[in-house]
Amino acid sequence: MRHPVLRLSDQALRSADQAIGFLMQQAVENADCISLAAGLVDEQTLPVDLVRETVGKVLAESGSGSRLLQYGTTQGPEPLRRVFREYLAELEQRTDRLSDLPLSQLFLTTGSQQLLALLAQALFNPGDICLVAAPTYFVFLGVLQAVGADIVPVTADGFGMCPAALRETLSRLEQEGRLSRVRLVYVVSDFENPSGVSVSAERRPQLLSLAREFSRESRIFLLEDAAYRELRYDGVSPASIWSFDRDRETVILAQTFSKSFSPGIRVGLGVVPQSLVKPLSDLKGNEDFESAHLNQHVVARALKDRTYHQHVQRVRDNYRIKRDAMLEAADREFGGLPGVSWYRPEGGMYVWMRLPDSVPTGFQSAMFRRATQVDKVMYVPGELCYPQDWPARPRSEMRLSFGVQSPDGIREGMRRLASSVRWALETGG
Amino acid sequence: MRHPVLRLSDQALRSADQAIGFLMQQAVENADCISLAAGLVDEQTLPVDLVRETVGKVLAESGSGSRLLQYGTTQGPEPLRRVFREYLAELEQRTDRLSDLPLSQLFLTTGSQQLLALLAQALFNPGDICLVAAPTYFVFLGVLQAVGADIVPVTADGFGMCPAALRETLSRLEQEGRLSRVRLVYVVSDFENPSGVSVSAERRPQLLSLAREFSRESRIFLLEDAAYRELRYDGVSPASIWSFDRDRETVILAQTFSKSFSPGIRVGLGVVPQSLVKPLSDLKGNEDFESAHLNQHVVARALKDRTYHQHVQRVRDNYRIKRDAMLEAADREFGGLPGVSWYRPEGGMYVWMRLPDSVPTGFQSAMFRRATQVDKVMYVPGELCYPQDWPARPRSEMRLSFGVQSPDGIREGMRRLASSVRWALETGG
Repeated sequence: MRHPVLRLSDQALRSADQAIGFLMQQAVENADCISLAAGLVDEQTLPVDLVRETVGKVLAESGSGSRLLQYGTTQGPEPLRRVFREYLAELEQRTDRLSDLPLSQLFLTTGSQQLLALLAQALFNPGDICLVAAPTYFVFLGVLQAVGADIVPVTADGFGMCPAALRETLSRLEQEGRLSRVRLVYVVSDFENPSGVSVSAERRPQLLSLAREFSRESRIFLLEDAAYRELRYDGVSPASIWSFDRDRETVILAQTFSKSFSPGIRVGLGVVPQSLVKPLSDLKGNEDFESAHLNQHVVARALKDRTYHQHVQRVRDNYRIKRDAMLEAADREFGGLPGVSWYRPEGGMYVWMRLPDSVPTGFQSAMFRRATQVDKVMYVPGELCYPQDWPARPRSEMRLSFGVQSPDGIREGMRRLASSVRWALETGG
Repeated sequence: MRHPVLRLSDQALRSADQAIGFLMQQAVENADCISLAAGLVDEQTLPVDLVRETVGKVLAESGSGSRLLQYGTTQGPEPLRRVFREYLAELEQRTDRLSDLPLSQLFLTTGSQQLLALLAQALFNPGDICLVAAPTYFVFLGVLQAVGADIVPVTADGFGMCPAALRETLSRLEQEGRLSRVRLVYVVSDFENPSGVSVSAERRPQLLSLAREFSRESRIFLLEDAAYRELRYDGVSPASIWSFDRDRETVILAQTFSKSFSPGIRVGLGVVPQSLVKPLSDLKGNEDFESAHLNQHVVARALKDRTYHQHVQRVRDNYRIKRDAMLEAADREFGGLPGVSWYRPEGGMYVWMRLPDSVPTGFQSAMFRRATQVDKVMYVPGELCYPQDWPARPRSEMRLSFGVQSPDGIREGMRRLASSVRWALETGG
């Protein structure tokens, strides 16, 4: 039968054609390639035995087993939030166990992605402004696009988002009469996906101060996405941006157990300003009542038993070897190539590589076709990591992941990729 | 420090002050009452041992354990969707295993609530219209309110939403020039929360036909919420409304394992028209990438092993006893009271009771205060189950749940409630 016109909401229309969709499609079409594109975690690191044992434990505990399978609460059961607060206190090196942080400000979500999405829903009407580092996490760009946000890029370098650029951007928006539309500054503080860069210790309080200083016409929040926080392979962790937020009314801290433990278990941890607790809880209640709290119990129990901590140490040891393999291969394969450069990340899962401007890397580029069709290697085109409607966005970068491949796979992938890059440099892209 | 004005999105503002929030608040404030209000499931029925054993099985299977903890896919892993399709085929009594239903049309969600919320996000701009039975599931009213939908009630009786009333309402909207704004008809087909009523076999195809007939200016979908479908204690299940939708382009079927298995495990199953697959998948991808698929594996494995089927039989046997206890107590305690009537549900978890119009039952009513303060029993005021802005909504009804209390608790609760009702009838409310 013939059906009349399908009318979708504005939000649904804006949710179509997102970078992640194109990327997934390319991954399917190029399944024969060595993927340096996939943002998955290494399956070898996944805590199969630990999860099995821990599920057994939490379900066996007398009196609590059936509670775990009952409805819980929208933000996650309070006793669990207490455990997660202690874990956060450890990360923050707070000897007071963060006992002054009300449990009401903690949210357990379906990965940190859900908190990012809820926050976007809570803050943005179409045309409201979000400032993001350039480049930044492209999935959040899709979330912002879906709510109709106006995404404004802020220059970032090897030390993260530049405070001077943030000030300049906010001042410009103020001159344009648009400051009242700014809702959020989005910062991936540690080993950013895609750049691998962490915001330096010096810049952290500066970014926070700027969000506050420009909160003149309306409140500007700062979303600190610390998804990769625990995946540090060298050096010392700087204090979180959140730790500088004394009255805890500016920074939303988003963390996840997807990278350090398991993505499939879908447990994220957020800390939000008191003023956002009810709006976010109302939205989350509508969305799913609550996330799977059996899973939250499993992570909480692993935290309490400190089996989690042992596990994360193994995860770090595994990724460190792979990060080193990628950087060594980069030196070896790309070291002599003119105009090719990359960051040396201290953690996370990504190496960000710049090619000369004459070599575009997008899905439609000769370079991408050469890599996927001839050399059989796939990467994430860097241009996905900038606002789609930003004409000045760089188009000659690549996000390279060392998450999924073995060290040998990484070396072979990098060898193949260098072959494509050499070809592109010789043919002029 | 002083913070400037907090600006929230329209959606966040509309998400505040919802019925479920008020109800939870009352539940907390009246924790000393026997609750005939809570919509939780009976903890005695929760499959603690089964879940523990099944998690052990799925994580032990060689090669698959780590896959379960990795990222999956937005709609749930395809092999699992195949298992869920076979389960649906059983419910639908289809001997062909529904093999003509593309797996792409199946969604595994965080409870059915997430599908309801995603669908509302996908279809409604502010001012678009949803038709609902009066009364209906109040949580979905909140979801509709959050997206700014215009909620139009349609008369329902002991056989569900009245097709004549649906036709009349759609015709009226057409005369008013508003037919093009109608997006959805929402129908809880089995043992509706709150009324306990099922849509009769005769009416099912009629409601579907009307949605199609009036899809003149734009497509009108029908959301069949079958959350309680498997909790039938007497009689025979009629075919789903979805089963009459030959080209599967009108009905969205929403089911859940929250009632039959475990709410905490958060697994819902949806079947959606092909035209909605991509919009819903885009929205869900933004929202959480995917629901916890370890949990989906557990339910799928219990389905394959048929341990699920044994479990549901035990759940039904347990609730049947409690349903009977509530109906017997209703007969005994309320049988002689003038103007008091109730439905006799064949399944689900609720008995819907009407008092004379002279006895309002809302949170602010004398009856509610009497019940919670003096007789120490709590119910859900019926007025929550109608659109908040509908002036003509009935105000003298109650939703009584037999889900949580033991049979003795139900009898005592009903005795107490009858005492309040008698008081209200004598004092004139």
